Amino acid sequence: MKTELEQVLPKEIEKRSFEIITEELGDRKLDEAYAPIIKRVIHTTADFDYADNLLFSEGVREKALSALQNGACIVTDTQMARAGINKKALAKLGVEIYNFIADEDVSKLAKENGTTRSASCIDKAAALDKPVIFVIGNAPTALVRIYELVQEKKLNPELIIGTPVGFVNVVQSKEMIMELDIPYIIAKGRKGGSNVAAAIVNALLYMIYER
Amino acid sequence: MKTELEQVLPKEIEKRSFEIITEELGDRKLDEAYAPIIKRVIHTTADFDYADNLLFSEGVREKALSALQNGACIVTDTQMARAGINKKALAKLGVEIYNFIADEDVSKLAKENGTTRSASCIDKAAALDKPVIFVIGNAPTALVRIYELVQEKKLNPELIIGTPVGFVNVVQSKEMIMELDIPYIIAKGRKGGSNVAAAIVNALLYMIYER
Repeated sequence: MKTELEQVLPKEIEKRSFEIITEELGDRKLDEAYAPIIKRVIHTTADFDYADNLLFSEGVREKALSALQNGACIVTDTQMARAGINKKALAKLGVEIYNFIADEDVSKLAKENGTTRSASCIDKAAALDKPVIFVIGNAPTALVRIYELVQEKKLNPELIIGTPVGFVNVVQSKEMIMELDIPYIIAKGRKGGSNVAAAIVNALLYMIYER
Repeated sequence: MKTELEQVLPKEIEKRSFEIITEELGDRKLDEAYAPIIKRVIHTTADFDYADNLLFSEGVREKALSALQNGACIVTDTQMARAGINKKALAKLGVEIYNFIADEDVSKLAKENGTTRSASCIDKAAALDKPVIFVIGNAPTALVRIYELVQEKKLNPELIIGTPVGFVNVVQSKEMIMELDIPYIIAKGRKGGSNVAAAIVNALLYMIYER
């Protein structure tokens, strides 16, 4: 074997990764309340742009932790975001997680309204009879639909995690969410993804348990 | 609404995204055989670094397409990678997809061997009685185990898609795979992810169907 591996025990890999991230951030000061989220997103992406890209509404940390501990459910826009969230941590807290993208009624509604299935998932979520945390890692159309329904007073989520990625209306959709009076965690700009959204949720869950 | 949205029909969003990517690549020439893969990864990440980061072994395009059309199954290291692969396209081709990370025997084997569950998934995959395409988007330990089993002649996969992300042995594990005489598509460096791995598989599937 020409390549030399760093010898790290399986259970130590994540710890060692966070040490490297902290080292490489160097003098860069992160807001302490949000450092675990920012570092976990860097851990998930190996992209230090997220030291600058993540935006947090005032007091969102406490609001998010409180929602997760007080019966809010999570609605994701993609199966990937759902797959990336730690199921054991969710189960410990009794947090339910929903993804409606493959549901027939969502597909039907999208066709009727000439919109995306991602947007129709938000309409379906608006009918849930419990507080909702939106975890939107992919679809700007989902964020736009959240914006519309909040403006129409048909939706009042506990928290919006908005990290769509891409080129068409991605930047705008995030700006729209920041205009609302709803707690948010946003990855500004074009970057993001379902992995980023899931990492943010996991960081919040781990804050509760300090693992 | 202060923010102005670009008016794009739902079914046109992806097409418009690819147009923007092509525009922004400008004079940058991509290998035509791999441009659809590179552009899809940029579409998934909004990260133009992937115009330089993706490495393809000689002739891997034809080998990959042939494997997908001739009975190879896919084994992923994460549920996220599995979730991100287009199930309709897989079903059309009759390609089976496996992820063993939550299996009890894998957890047991990992504990016995003092390794990660991701590495033990590779041992389980080596026992499958059909040709395998590995789609490893997260775990360098999975790539290292593939390397070891190939060296020991206990594994001979059709293709390795290797895009782990992170800080501990990620770069090294990818270099090890490139030492083997097995077709590969690798995201060099620290960057990658389950989303990147899934995007590569989807690009290959769409090449077959030209959608």
